[in-house]
Amino acid sequence: MKLGEGVEAAIHCTATLAGLPDKAVLSAASLAEYFGLSASYLVKHLKALVAQGILVSVPGPNGGYRLKGTPEEITLLDIVLAVEGREPAFRCQEIRRNGPCAELGDSAFPAPCGINRAMLKAEQAYRAVLAETRISDLVREFRAKDDPRVVEQGLSFVERHQRPQSRVRNPEEQET
Amino acid sequence: MKLGEGVEAAIHCTATLAGLPDKAVLSAASLAEYFGLSASYLVKHLKALVAQGILVSVPGPNGGYRLKGTPEEITLLDIVLAVEGREPAFRCQEIRRNGPCAELGDSAFPAPCGINRAMLKAEQAYRAVLAETRISDLVREFRAKDDPRVVEQGLSFVERHQRPQSRVRNPEEQET
Repeated sequence: MKLGEGVEAAIHCTATLAGLPDKAVLSAASLAEYFGLSASYLVKHLKALVAQGILVSVPGPNGGYRLKGTPEEITLLDIVLAVEGREPAFRCQEIRRNGPCAELGDSAFPAPCGINRAMLKAEQAYRAVLAETRISDLVREFRAKDDPRVVEQGLSFVERHQRPQSRVRNPEEQET
Repeated sequence: MKLGEGVEAAIHCTATLAGLPDKAVLSAASLAEYFGLSASYLVKHLKALVAQGILVSVPGPNGGYRLKGTPEEITLLDIVLAVEGREPAFRCQEIRRNGPCAELGDSAFPAPCGINRAMLKAEQAYRAVLAETRISDLVREFRAKDDPRVVEQGLSFVERHQRPQSRVRNPEEQET
């Protein structure tokens, strides 16, 4: 079982955007520079976050990305599902219905397979923990506990690269 | 996030082998027939279960597979880790150390990334639920709750295809 590497990038980018002042944005190029990633790689995941209503994309030469809501409203589960899709990790192929049981037909299988139920129960526990962790929690913990030099680098990078916006100057802002 | 399809096959095969009488085995071909899978596909996963001490492989023309221990001793976690490997699904690439933070060096990162910690906490919850579910639980539930025709097909298939063994006749039995 493996999560795509895009999950780490998507969480870090969302947490970084949480540090922006109201309506300001960071470009994909700035985020890519901060995390040492290619911008084209990152844009794919940023678009997934926009599609799921986590980020807003502001087009144009002074455009970029910002959170759609507040950092309190975004959980790790939101981000993982946006990047990885909503399907469970365990995808029952109903192999219990093959072989000699194939002749029995649908009526012999009124309930989901017990193995599927047990696997999904574990996945619900996984998702519940992810849903408990908000981006605001991660930002608060980062600022309180990480090395002050790392925190300072993050704050000053965002300060230098942020692009202030006003609604008047960006009437075409895309909410989805 | 996606688990390999081998997980479903591995759990079903282990649960089926739990129905064998002492020392008897089922061949990979029989298990493959029961679940409508190719034997070569299945052998790969059965070997992983043998390598992790969940199954025993008995070689020879009358050989096959059986549980190494009892169904009470095998959890879903054992099987998932045997098939998918023990690495966590979230694999931190430490992208926090790239870009402007690269100049800070290791001393600025004494603790794991908070994002990594949060993701691993969720994975621990997932694994804890898998570790609570034993093969004996799944077998008991299957026999008690699944359609009696399905249970009967399973029992009679195992009855017809099982291969009795004795330690004397199979001195080369492989425990690993």
